[in-house]
Amino acid sequence: MRVLKGCAAKDGFYLPAEFERQAGCIMIFPERADSWQYGAVKARQAFAAVASEISKCESVTVLASAAQYKNARRIMPPSVRVVEMSTDDAWARDISPEFLTDGKGTLRGASFGFNAWGGLYDGLYFPWDKDDAASEKLCDLFNVDMYDCHDFILEGGSISCNGKGTLLTTEECLLSKGRNPSLTKQQIEQKLCDFLGVKKVIWLKHGLIGDETNGHVDNICVFCAEDEVILSWDENENSEQHAICRECSDILENSTTADGRPIKVHKIPMPSPVFMTEEECAGLDYFNGAPTRTADIPLSASYVNLFIANDRVVMPFFGGENAEADLHAKEILQKIFPDRKVTGIYARDILIGGGNIHCITHQIPE
Amino acid sequence: MRVLKGCAAKDGFYLPAEFERQAGCIMIFPERADSWQYGAVKARQAFAAVASEISKCESVTVLASAAQYKNARRIMPPSVRVVEMSTDDAWARDISPEFLTDGKGTLRGASFGFNAWGGLYDGLYFPWDKDDAASEKLCDLFNVDMYDCHDFILEGGSISCNGKGTLLTTEECLLSKGRNPSLTKQQIEQKLCDFLGVKKVIWLKHGLIGDETNGHVDNICVFCAEDEVILSWDENENSEQHAICRECSDILENSTTADGRPIKVHKIPMPSPVFMTEEECAGLDYFNGAPTRTADIPLSASYVNLFIANDRVVMPFFGGENAEADLHAKEILQKIFPDRKVTGIYARDILIGGGNIHCITHQIPE
Repeated sequence: MRVLKGCAAKDGFYLPAEFERQAGCIMIFPERADSWQYGAVKARQAFAAVASEISKCESVTVLASAAQYKNARRIMPPSVRVVEMSTDDAWARDISPEFLTDGKGTLRGASFGFNAWGGLYDGLYFPWDKDDAASEKLCDLFNVDMYDCHDFILEGGSISCNGKGTLLTTEECLLSKGRNPSLTKQQIEQKLCDFLGVKKVIWLKHGLIGDETNGHVDNICVFCAEDEVILSWDENENSEQHAICRECSDILENSTTADGRPIKVHKIPMPSPVFMTEEECAGLDYFNGAPTRTADIPLSASYVNLFIANDRVVMPFFGGENAEADLHAKEILQKIFPDRKVTGIYARDILIGGGNIHCITHQIPE
Repeated sequence: MRVLKGCAAKDGFYLPAEFERQAGCIMIFPERADSWQYGAVKARQAFAAVASEISKCESVTVLASAAQYKNARRIMPPSVRVVEMSTDDAWARDISPEFLTDGKGTLRGASFGFNAWGGLYDGLYFPWDKDDAASEKLCDLFNVDMYDCHDFILEGGSISCNGKGTLLTTEECLLSKGRNPSLTKQQIEQKLCDFLGVKKVIWLKHGLIGDETNGHVDNICVFCAEDEVILSWDENENSEQHAICRECSDILENSTTADGRPIKVHKIPMPSPVFMTEEECAGLDYFNGAPTRTADIPLSASYVNLFIANDRVVMPFFGGENAEADLHAKEILQKIFPDRKVTGIYARDILIGGGNIHCITHQIPE
């Protein structure tokens, strides 16, 4: 692997869309006792179900710590590859490199800085050195040369790309004080263009309320086609979240793609608020002497937080009082993705760890 | 990766020869402070030189601990892949799986137990759990199904195979009390046949004097063609080592391959005894409170401890008073391998760690 310092855009490399053809998917075996309740047992089963489903149409590599390798190997299905790699938690979306293509069959990785969603300002854990090192190791593992973009903090969940030069993100996240506080909005936009080979950035204002990532776009709105997005939609017109969703839809309806096309917005109703139980909270280690979660704060559940695989879409189901909403969301997604089989995976045990299916996966383009 | 319990031989899988076409090579970044003097700095340079040479004709994967990954990445040439994996030392030959082929393009790994060359009886370090776990991880990493042969202790350096059913080993090693003491010679032979798909085992008596591995065959005698071996040869007719070499040559001249062919023996003169200096010994951490090495005991230097790559042979040079012997050995090897370029790498800094180029490499057949 070569470590490159240049500008990906100038070299003709760019970020493809997630709905384009993929070579595989990266995941991480959950282990952290202050993120995953009761020894991560149920979370691991949910991760295995996601990995199993994706592995039906593309290769899946699951990273596991040295201590957990043998355990992970036996819990994960044989169709999945388990590779030892040390990380600080299990968020492959955010700590993997962005895999860029030159459109002619060569991939390169863009390896950004990672500081646990806000560093010492409002990050979620410390230290985060293993997570920060993972993107370089992943470029090496997958034999792609790496652009070293470590002086810029960026997580995969904070961007969504249409593969034709248009990138979607939120101001709440990318302009947050814990990421790149010395850069202006304009400078950040330039970095995205240089490092990811995009030509236009569409800035939404906010993500979901209660999202611990400072409003990652992948929990509220993602590209599902070159000129189409799926937007998580709060149908309660009196809610604060509804106002945010409305603002997103206004921005999108007044935006065009880099090549001038209007953007079609598919609204997908949000599930009812999901709360952790007291028992679930009690299953978590304290973090730095404080409880990790309390049962009174709703988790930022969203159907948009899904993984698009080659011939299928893997979406979260929340069950319980959301059982009907789950099926309704699946119907909508099946219409949006007519050529892919949409599968729901019961993902409560991923959600209560702090994210969902999109957060725990990262695609590798073909 | 599937974990298989069956018999490789019955499934039609067998161990190919090292001189057959390879897909790549595994190595490990040296780190252990009681094996590698003065922070392993010189050893790492020697390992990098070996990796660089092999990577000219096949892919090389170097395993490095989490702590050393970034360092290894920068010391190793860009042509080499560096992958995080925890091990107890740097002996890829002995802790890797044996990669078997069905002759039709499918590989499987045979994963044996590893106990640091003798376990609690006369092993070289404790614990060895990371080394023991590596062969499974390597099968997973390289996407090959694995035969679980962990109840049998076997190191790659203790066998040499002609790819046509004949395996060479030493009684000193395979019948040692620290390996599989509950098995008879006949039972061990059967295990080798079952697990490695060989039909005949040729038993040499001893390996090199002073070899810490209980006389690994790869330091004294290895196959270089289906019916040819290279034998390390002590020309001092009064020496104990000469008697051992003579015994090997007698056994080989009275043996045939599994398919009945006589075996041609190429003798290659041993280098003069190589000793560590006091200064080198002082550069090692103590092991369990005792000095790791002393300057009065000769190291088991041998030109046979080489790596056969696709279009080259990488052999150790010892320099100093062996400068001429190095060139003479290279000439002999170049005649034995007329279609490969023989390259000498200054390998004193590998030797004083306890092995040589064959010990730190492990081929993956094509």
